Amino acid sequence: MKVSELRIQTARLWQSLEEMAQRGATPDGGVCRLALSDADKEGRDLFCDWLRNLGLTVQIDQVGNILAIRPGSQDEAPVLIGSHLDTVSTGGRFDGAAGVLAGLEVLRTLEEKGIRTRRPLGLVSFTNEEGARYTTDMMGSQAFCGELSVEQVWAIRGLDGTLVGEELRRIGYAGDFPCGAIRPYAYLELHIEQGPQLDRAGIPIGIVEAITGLTWLEVIVRGAANHAGTTPMDNRRDAALAAARIVASLPDLASSIPDQRATCGRFSVAPGIVNVIPHEAIFTVDLRNGDPARLLEAETQFRARVQEISSRSNVLAEIRLLGHVPPQRCDPQVVSVIESVATDLAYPSRRMVSGAGHDAQILARICPTAMIFIPSRDGVSHSPAEYSTPEALEAGANVLLHTALRLAGVERA
Amino acid sequence: MKVSELRIQTARLWQSLEEMAQRGATPDGGVCRLALSDADKEGRDLFCDWLRNLGLTVQIDQVGNILAIRPGSQDEAPVLIGSHLDTVSTGGRFDGAAGVLAGLEVLRTLEEKGIRTRRPLGLVSFTNEEGARYTTDMMGSQAFCGELSVEQVWAIRGLDGTLVGEELRRIGYAGDFPCGAIRPYAYLELHIEQGPQLDRAGIPIGIVEAITGLTWLEVIVRGAANHAGTTPMDNRRDAALAAARIVASLPDLASSIPDQRATCGRFSVAPGIVNVIPHEAIFTVDLRNGDPARLLEAETQFRARVQEISSRSNVLAEIRLLGHVPPQRCDPQVVSVIESVATDLAYPSRRMVSGAGHDAQILARICPTAMIFIPSRDGVSHSPAEYSTPEALEAGANVLLHTALRLAGVERA
Repeated sequence: MKVSELRIQTARLWQSLEEMAQRGATPDGGVCRLALSDADKEGRDLFCDWLRNLGLTVQIDQVGNILAIRPGSQDEAPVLIGSHLDTVSTGGRFDGAAGVLAGLEVLRTLEEKGIRTRRPLGLVSFTNEEGARYTTDMMGSQAFCGELSVEQVWAIRGLDGTLVGEELRRIGYAGDFPCGAIRPYAYLELHIEQGPQLDRAGIPIGIVEAITGLTWLEVIVRGAANHAGTTPMDNRRDAALAAARIVASLPDLASSIPDQRATCGRFSVAPGIVNVIPHEAIFTVDLRNGDPARLLEAETQFRARVQEISSRSNVLAEIRLLGHVPPQRCDPQVVSVIESVATDLAYPSRRMVSGAGHDAQILARICPTAMIFIPSRDGVSHSPAEYSTPEALEAGANVLLHTALRLAGVERA
Repeated sequence: MKVSELRIQTARLWQSLEEMAQRGATPDGGVCRLALSDADKEGRDLFCDWLRNLGLTVQIDQVGNILAIRPGSQDEAPVLIGSHLDTVSTGGRFDGAAGVLAGLEVLRTLEEKGIRTRRPLGLVSFTNEEGARYTTDMMGSQAFCGELSVEQVWAIRGLDGTLVGEELRRIGYAGDFPCGAIRPYAYLELHIEQGPQLDRAGIPIGIVEAITGLTWLEVIVRGAANHAGTTPMDNRRDAALAAARIVASLPDLASSIPDQRATCGRFSVAPGIVNVIPHEAIFTVDLRNGDPARLLEAETQFRARVQEISSRSNVLAEIRLLGHVPPQRCDPQVVSVIESVATDLAYPSRRMVSGAGHDAQILARICPTAMIFIPSRDGVSHSPAEYSTPEALEAGANVLLHTALRLAGVERA
């Protein structure tokens, strides 16, 4: 057969996804496979068995990342495919696992058909992408890329009081393969979109051009508590009203900047009594954009708006930076390869910005990187209701396969 | 001397206020005299001593209201002056006590000058006006007027788990004078404004024409939780945004109805995570107006606004009635008497609506009633910073004295 006619086996991929979903399965059809938990160990063990069944050597690095390299004909830097197997506590079957198992299916397809690549082809499952138990998200990929030291990672304490280092030993995944030993030629990650755009548009393949940056701000509004009945409307310093005005203006801010998102996730007032004008309101804003200049523009506009509304409402506002992750552009050449593969395979595709963070944004700092998105039904993720169809997985995995082959090169048999 | 030249003694009134403020005094200069507490007992004991020193018989009724009647020349229904001695936990020296002790000063002045009224003149201190320990506010006056039975009052359980009946016995104020035995000819209450209007305008006397009604609503907004990064702005069901839009519109609602107030006192969102669009927001609204038709109009407008904004924001909203107290008009004739007394005494005055609830609104249901307001500095109350000047108290007590005399009639000696 011609290499261009090569396709993954959808039923095999789907079956593996089903089996993986049994590790940490919850009664509602979801998955709870928190990083380094017993369920995570079960999922890891299953994945390692599958890799060994392909005749591959499994490497566990110092932070528990699971890595296997299928040798190429030449001893060069590998094309690396990866994602994660951990989930949030109320997770689904697809977030992370779809990418790891699509990578596994690529390796199985090549092995089955006896196809040898020029560059080695690697597959990695990173430890603790979600940050649900240990709140440092993308932890394994950060260590892999040298952004966190091994010692830093081991010392991270979880919400349950456990230490990463101890839990790695407990579940048998405290490996000795050095973090940073691999510098990939390129990194590819397939992932569910976790948003509704592909599903709404009926487009099977999203090509991630950039991973969103985010700025998290906390606004503390301070006014004066007073009697709700006796204080005239024009004589108030109402912290709740000022905060509500700011939050109500977020859609307007978002619509003034292309591809901007702005969300209030927390909002509380004090003293919180029905007949007392609140003296304090505290809320958070999550600003996201895939473009650094636009993200900065959103923050600047937001800060100006807070000052304008606070002044008009006769209150004071303080803004605290809770977090900032810069937007990460994907590699234009890798993006182009994915796009031409999708075209050649006759899958409609769309370039897009990932609104969520992924291991790929860490890898993009050390090697050419891009992502393949497949549709999430109704845009739902981090939920037992998370779902992508077998056809969506098939399309994504075939694009992943041929992108990897183009980047790694095929050795004629 | 002519009766029209009669004046209260400011220094004596101020001194009594100072002494009363020592009962339950807090280190910050405030007062904590929660109903039926040890401090309340001390305040009551002091008040009863002062009444007995005037030669009056003190009656304690079945719910602990303290009552003394100075006989008139005719055996008719008394003109009753009253207010309360209990405070909130972080209270001041004036709220309630100013009215009771101004009434005491009226009796002292008449006694000192040997002036006999035609109708008897009564003075009452009602139990638990604040509702701070036992959350049924205006409890004593409600029992006095037959709106609560004695048995109902005894069975009220406080936030600290105590029962009113047991605490009355514990502090020695479980009296046997029957509630409802007195039907006043008229009721007068002097009180601090607890708002800034008189203080801002520099007017010493407020004449309360009506006591505000209130409608307390709780709004539960239900949307859908989703990812703050991956969910497009136009595809959200953001409960926090819809709730913020409603709250931000409250000043507009208030300004469309005369003398309307609208306040959001509680506001919370769920799940309350910085990067998750909230699926639920719950907030309260306190609507107040002294006019029943306007209060109803405000509620109707508010409900329509909630529906309009919820529909536009793609969320559902449910509105629950938490409480309703109808506005209470004061007696026009008593209001006129107060107004002409103020004019005769050369005190500038203004008719106004009380934005807070008072025992007077309960008494107004059984007898002609009106209130005299004196300025609160900066409108502050329920705070150690609560303050009214000796001059303000003097003016108020003189207006109270002459209003009582006109209503009771003076027996020429």
